Amino acid sequence: MKTLQQSFTVPFQYSVYFTRKLFDKENHTFVEVLDTSIGPKKVLFVFDQGVVDHHPDLIEQTQQYVATHADKIINPGKHLILPGGEQCKNDYNHVNRLVESINELGIDRHSYLAVIGGGSVLDTAGFAAAVSHRGIRLLRIPTTVLSQNDSGVGVKNGVNAFQKKNFIGSFAPPAAVINDREFLHTLEIRDWRSGIAEGIKVGLIKDISFFKFIEDSAQQLLERDMEVMDHLIYRCAELHLQHIASGDAFEMGSSRPLDFGHWSAHKLEQIDDYQIRHGEAVALGMALDAIYSYLEGRLSQSDLERILYLMLSLGFVMFHEGLKSPLLLEGLREFQEHLGGQLTVMLLEQIGKGVEVHSIDPDLVLKSVEVLQGFNKNHQLDL
Amino acid sequence: MKTLQQSFTVPFQYSVYFTRKLFDKENHTFVEVLDTSIGPKKVLFVFDQGVVDHHPDLIEQTQQYVATHADKIINPGKHLILPGGEQCKNDYNHVNRLVESINELGIDRHSYLAVIGGGSVLDTAGFAAAVSHRGIRLLRIPTTVLSQNDSGVGVKNGVNAFQKKNFIGSFAPPAAVINDREFLHTLEIRDWRSGIAEGIKVGLIKDISFFKFIEDSAQQLLERDMEVMDHLIYRCAELHLQHIASGDAFEMGSSRPLDFGHWSAHKLEQIDDYQIRHGEAVALGMALDAIYSYLEGRLSQSDLERILYLMLSLGFVMFHEGLKSPLLLEGLREFQEHLGGQLTVMLLEQIGKGVEVHSIDPDLVLKSVEVLQGFNKNHQLDL
Repeated sequence: MKTLQQSFTVPFQYSVYFTRKLFDKENHTFVEVLDTSIGPKKVLFVFDQGVVDHHPDLIEQTQQYVATHADKIINPGKHLILPGGEQCKNDYNHVNRLVESINELGIDRHSYLAVIGGGSVLDTAGFAAAVSHRGIRLLRIPTTVLSQNDSGVGVKNGVNAFQKKNFIGSFAPPAAVINDREFLHTLEIRDWRSGIAEGIKVGLIKDISFFKFIEDSAQQLLERDMEVMDHLIYRCAELHLQHIASGDAFEMGSSRPLDFGHWSAHKLEQIDDYQIRHGEAVALGMALDAIYSYLEGRLSQSDLERILYLMLSLGFVMFHEGLKSPLLLEGLREFQEHLGGQLTVMLLEQIGKGVEVHSIDPDLVLKSVEVLQGFNKNHQLDL
Repeated sequence: MKTLQQSFTVPFQYSVYFTRKLFDKENHTFVEVLDTSIGPKKVLFVFDQGVVDHHPDLIEQTQQYVATHADKIINPGKHLILPGGEQCKNDYNHVNRLVESINELGIDRHSYLAVIGGGSVLDTAGFAAAVSHRGIRLLRIPTTVLSQNDSGVGVKNGVNAFQKKNFIGSFAPPAAVINDREFLHTLEIRDWRSGIAEGIKVGLIKDISFFKFIEDSAQQLLERDMEVMDHLIYRCAELHLQHIASGDAFEMGSSRPLDFGHWSAHKLEQIDDYQIRHGEAVALGMALDAIYSYLEGRLSQSDLERILYLMLSLGFVMFHEGLKSPLLLEGLREFQEHLGGQLTVMLLEQIGKGVEVHSIDPDLVLKSVEVLQGFNKNHQLDL
């Protein structure tokens, strides 16, 4: 039998910029990010309704910015606004509307879609961009802690279907990411806190010194100290990017190390009909898997206590009735099914050191839920 | 301003197998292609209605094959049939139906979608596979000359929208491609011939000896000599794979060298409401751009004559009224818009040597159409 072997690599490169007041006239970050070597480029702006509500001048500001830089940016004459939060990802019509606009406005593979918003809007617009003309250039301008330090700097997009998170999506690295910390001032406290969960996550599985930084800064983070948050976001994004670049960027294997605490978190979000924030659910999921790690004899009691008390000190609610739902354990199957292959769940050996396991004991999960519920009630570990 | 630089490469590998009677009990190609290292894998079969019509035993045969190899293949209990031809790509409901089945049947990122059919069905199923769970594994089993030597061995998929070919799609290399030449026996003569056009194409732009092989074999190809066709498909697929691996696999630049003759071909297909076969349109598009190359002084008259007479000897119809449509020149703009960036069209310097140009003279295109119409009438060049 004759066989032809195909083998090639595709290089991907992008930068994550950290700036302030992105659309001020004198801020040149945005135009410098565009590749205008062969002429000005069309940029279609997509806004998160929640961001527009908090920054009523934003649309006008971007329009003025575009007008000021007319030598580099072509205004396609229209912008789009998507509802923020998970509802955006739950309604495929938003994808259709975006793809239709990309067609109508003649946005091509060398034009840009610039999306300003939280993770859900970035994900929805990112997917529409990825499948139009087999991928048009995406500029992500994340406006939440969570999207600035985690989802918005990565290579994935996705929308929900069949009540499953990110059932439809793709791997599509952005052309660039621009983090503007000014957007963080107007976040609700729940969203501010929610993003810290992903920082705790990378600390727990990868970097004890980063975990310790969050411990030491807990009070300042509670008081919304912007310098501390700035460092948290930068370092978390950096660890996230390093992880993607060092391994299986498009997740062809069975491993999902960055999804520590996520198997139950995703399910809990669905059980709670997406009322709970992603980061809040991740905090609970990590607490659960940390307790599980302890009960299995992997993690020391003192490390477990440090983890739970850090979350408590940051104001995370340490229990949710949804964790008692009989649906919870289905999350494990769905987590496996998304990647397929072997069940692979990250647990902890110590703070800063994750370990992958391939089986989970359902009874021990239920026991972990009870321990967490007890901790939430008494603020102490009852083991 | 702080900046993080992200840079990584993603490796892609797949094989193109050439076999006969793929689902005979003693043919082990299919099971050997599956990665069953950690257990048997689910395989969801998707069939082209046209193929099923010509091979009424095919579905039963695959089911028996799956049953015989139950240690390696899990039958998800269902298969799908899609209408063949361009109508498949024109109706997004087929994508939705596939994604729904992938969900229902628990097809995950380590399962396979095995699609048996012509290029349109491969493209539609390939897109559905690419966006489900951010990409499930795709086995392409192309059943036409065109898909075995060109579209089916590449890295692209796509469906049509807004009356534009492949407006929605992605780059998604398959897990493997299996070419079974037995499927070619039942092709209509138009489809047999249509696939030869892509062979002529790669010969014209890349490999004069391959062009010469087709010239020398024209009579045998007309008589449907399977050994000759076998070689044509193998070499054409090989050149296609080499091209992808050697350059810009995901088309991030402005260049589309493999799309020689395609700017007008795509438009002509649309003008003719997809009644004309893709390969037939490509032959006309290449004839047009070869004449244009001659009229611009790039290509010699003798080379041009060789090209036109080869097409004629293979039985290609050498003109189509749609080429006189005022819509034709819009194809140039749409061709540019798909990739964006600079207009980049492949012309010919000589047989076996393409050259990229960045502007096209509309009047010279219209003149080329006239020359082609004359050639079709008199079977001689009237220059």
